Amino acid sequence: MAKSALQIARAGYKAKMPKALTGNLTIKEGDPTQSVADHDDIRHLFPNTYGMPIVTFVESSEEKKYPAMNVGVILSGGQAPGGHNVIAGLFDGIKRLNKGSRLFGFLLGPGGLIEHNYMELTAEIIDEYRNTGGFDIIGSGRTKLEKKDQFDKGLEILKKLDIKALVIIGGDDSNTNACVLAEYYKHKNTGIQVIGCPKTIDGDLKNEMIETSFGFDTACKVYSELIGNIERDCNSSRKYWHFIKLMGRSASHITLECALQTQPNICLISEEVEAKKQTLDDVVNYIADIIAKRAENGDNFGTILIPEGLVEFIPAMKNLITELNDFLAENIEEFSLIKKIKYLTEKLKPENAAIYASLPENVARQLAMDRDPHGNVQVSLIETDKLLIEMVGRRLDHMKNEHRYVGKFSAQSHFFGYEGRCAAPSNYDADYCYSLGYAAAILIGEGKTGYMASVRNTTAPADEWIAGGVPITMMMNMERRHGELKPVIQKALVDLNAAPFKKFAADRNTWAMKTDFVYPGPIQYFGPTEVCDQPTKTLLLEQGVE
Amino acid sequence: MAKSALQIARAGYKAKMPKALTGNLTIKEGDPTQSVADHDDIRHLFPNTYGMPIVTFVESSEEKKYPAMNVGVILSGGQAPGGHNVIAGLFDGIKRLNKGSRLFGFLLGPGGLIEHNYMELTAEIIDEYRNTGGFDIIGSGRTKLEKKDQFDKGLEILKKLDIKALVIIGGDDSNTNACVLAEYYKHKNTGIQVIGCPKTIDGDLKNEMIETSFGFDTACKVYSELIGNIERDCNSSRKYWHFIKLMGRSASHITLECALQTQPNICLISEEVEAKKQTLDDVVNYIADIIAKRAENGDNFGTILIPEGLVEFIPAMKNLITELNDFLAENIEEFSLIKKIKYLTEKLKPENAAIYASLPENVARQLAMDRDPHGNVQVSLIETDKLLIEMVGRRLDHMKNEHRYVGKFSAQSHFFGYEGRCAAPSNYDADYCYSLGYAAAILIGEGKTGYMASVRNTTAPADEWIAGGVPITMMMNMERRHGELKPVIQKALVDLNAAPFKKFAADRNTWAMKTDFVYPGPIQYFGPTEVCDQPTKTLLLEQGVE
Repeated sequence: MAKSALQIARAGYKAKMPKALTGNLTIKEGDPTQSVADHDDIRHLFPNTYGMPIVTFVESSEEKKYPAMNVGVILSGGQAPGGHNVIAGLFDGIKRLNKGSRLFGFLLGPGGLIEHNYMELTAEIIDEYRNTGGFDIIGSGRTKLEKKDQFDKGLEILKKLDIKALVIIGGDDSNTNACVLAEYYKHKNTGIQVIGCPKTIDGDLKNEMIETSFGFDTACKVYSELIGNIERDCNSSRKYWHFIKLMGRSASHITLECALQTQPNICLISEEVEAKKQTLDDVVNYIADIIAKRAENGDNFGTILIPEGLVEFIPAMKNLITELNDFLAENIEEFSLIKKIKYLTEKLKPENAAIYASLPENVARQLAMDRDPHGNVQVSLIETDKLLIEMVGRRLDHMKNEHRYVGKFSAQSHFFGYEGRCAAPSNYDADYCYSLGYAAAILIGEGKTGYMASVRNTTAPADEWIAGGVPITMMMNMERRHGELKPVIQKALVDLNAAPFKKFAADRNTWAMKTDFVYPGPIQYFGPTEVCDQPTKTLLLEQGVE
Repeated sequence: MAKSALQIARAGYKAKMPKALTGNLTIKEGDPTQSVADHDDIRHLFPNTYGMPIVTFVESSEEKKYPAMNVGVILSGGQAPGGHNVIAGLFDGIKRLNKGSRLFGFLLGPGGLIEHNYMELTAEIIDEYRNTGGFDIIGSGRTKLEKKDQFDKGLEILKKLDIKALVIIGGDDSNTNACVLAEYYKHKNTGIQVIGCPKTIDGDLKNEMIETSFGFDTACKVYSELIGNIERDCNSSRKYWHFIKLMGRSASHITLECALQTQPNICLISEEVEAKKQTLDDVVNYIADIIAKRAENGDNFGTILIPEGLVEFIPAMKNLITELNDFLAENIEEFSLIKKIKYLTEKLKPENAAIYASLPENVARQLAMDRDPHGNVQVSLIETDKLLIEMVGRRLDHMKNEHRYVGKFSAQSHFFGYEGRCAAPSNYDADYCYSLGYAAAILIGEGKTGYMASVRNTTAPADEWIAGGVPITMMMNMERRHGELKPVIQKALVDLNAAPFKKFAADRNTWAMKTDFVYPGPIQYFGPTEVCDQPTKTLLLEQGVE
């Protein structure tokens, strides 16, 4: 495997850990816990794993002996920076508990467990992947682990390999499933424990006990590097409006964090658009008005951040899409595109037809044509950045005719997603992930199941971080998914009443007019600590540190 | 101006310089020079600035006195990392020659000279911009400085500000114009000197005396960071082919350098496509064949690099575009799109009609619709990445029907350009640019005009770099531009017989099948020298160091 100079130099980085994990430790158990909502339902569904206490690791003078144990690990869902360090921490952790412990990785996601594809992760392999990005050590996948026959199939291989515990590294859904699996294996008295680790670069797996999900820090820093570079370009040539779409369909945490880091002229937050019940026209007018105001100062340039999921948060668009789904479910498949568009325009409810007619041609075509395997409109294919450029351009033309706009509008569009998901983890994520993996090892040693590894107080220096575990049921409530009530971990959307959004809302009008771009530059691994070891602005603001 | 932690830390970086520039120096003059071709024509056009010797700065024991002087500086054309350091080096250089020297910046490119828009660049301003990306200190612009009345208009303000010399920082065209201006001001006995500095991130201003143009190193490192991240993602999820288009219309240096840094599965080099007289189908088949071969090994993923200018290097496409330009020049403007396409398909030469018919619908539409102000087809609007994805997809479908392809093809497209042009300069570019600016100051002090600042031997440690100046006429030849023979600096395309391309060509078959991605990671400013101070692979190979 050929390696870059940075890969070689970075391999030697020793991840920092909470002090309690570096020596002898013992566990401190809190009071019994409750789910965030729907207590009775969740308790009923998880009789064996409901109500367990939060556990915290604390230093101890006593050395504790643990037996050797075999552990399995799975990477589930989309890549996020730091996954390899979770596995390295887990490996080092179980080896510290007992040198005879072994680690098995299931290949290409939960499917590896079901199909019995695995490999042993030796010290040599682990060392190749320390502090690197990607999930390529064992690969990842999106198979959902949620059916009994899958659980039973997994059980076969776990028993065969004499595996005591399975660690599932994943997002909210994967951790929900980890808990269901923990409950099932406990119910069946298999003796096999299941532990989750909180990962999403979208940042929507977050609550009182899980400060942040890993990868969010690194990904936001990569995107902010690029946004800053584009802002500097924008401010040098002074002739383009850059529309930058950022990953994050179900929540706008990434966009908000990047805005706090780079101070763009305009930034849309899906949760606010939804709360204010804005229409697509409202959004377009908001952008066009700022562009027109800047043009009055001779500034025909700027930078706009847009969350990927925006369209789905606009109530009127949601209605249109729902109605489109109903129509497309009918048998108009064989219609030509033009006939289809005509049919839709005639049959849709008047308010939806009006919105549909207002969409740029390519979006109207795309909505009529592309359907997912369930027959639904493929919202993710809508190029929101280009849609907005076209509609804003039209709006500005209109304003020009009314002598309300005096500028020149040229736009460039960008989309950043894949660019950040597999970046080598920042020091923060390298440390955080390693500590999470190590904490998972201790939870296993202590016989816990249905827990998520937890590392908190991460705005302090690493040795003051607090490690432990949180019962997954504690984060659950009941939600309707595909028409069925299900126990799920509550998704954390951007809270419009919390400090990060408030800070943004307080500053955005200044940023709109003043051009006060900040250029964060690339992630640094070797420099001064104020450059290399800073957590996200979101976390600093949430914890009142900034 | 709000600043990031990295901006603050990086401001303190002291750019490294050739030893000769750090103390007392004298100049060594070589033999008279000749232009690269068309000697008589160039000599005739540049009677006052032709044939001057190459000059090199060497250490000296003697201290030389220089009078105070006012100097002007212009940033011309597209942004490239390091422009601010050229200006900082120039500032420090003229101040070292005499503390009473002053620097004036003309605003928003050559237009600032003509329109008399300028600002004095004080120590306070310069310090704000050391080691930063962008051209925002005085802005840049694309006004071409090539007419006598522009020169005379410039002369007014230069005289008014008592400016002794003008430094033009730009690409091949801007340096050609700098030389024409130098010749004009010398011819008119104005006493005003003109010095050029070699900038292009495309890397096509390069020759025996100019090893590299500034910004190329940093931009390639930013793109390679992103390509590496995408490769790691690609290798983790193992389900997408990523088509990555890279800036560089007139030459493929960026794409070649990024390929050498990241080892993608496929990389197209425009100059090779042209030399081999490949058709669009040849290119599509080349890609599809590799995809099919990898699919046989179960590898339905990969990464492909594509230079932005590819289409213009495909001879058959060039012919089609030429014929389209002729047709579009005729008055079919008022035709509807469908009529236009029909008309084109009927009227084009059969071979061009066949190519036109083979293009994806959106490209055919775009070619028929969008014209530049001269009435020409807008080749730059062709989304080459998406064009190839669609055509490769079709080709694979065809191969599947013939049982020659067993895989699954899903593709993602990316385009990187603006992301790298204004990045904060790497150590290499920070040092190189500062040295170039400093060298320009010495050339001015020594009374030179029509020279380009030159810094060579840059694969060695900075104190061994060789600084001096090269007569711009030495790089010139006569070329036909817009139908007119003009003196221009010869553009450096990728040389298919030079070491960088040969290295790539020797390794690409291995990279195609083996998946041997390298992940360069982000530019580092503070780490070990093998991480922070490396020049490009292109330069190392060209100089036989690697």
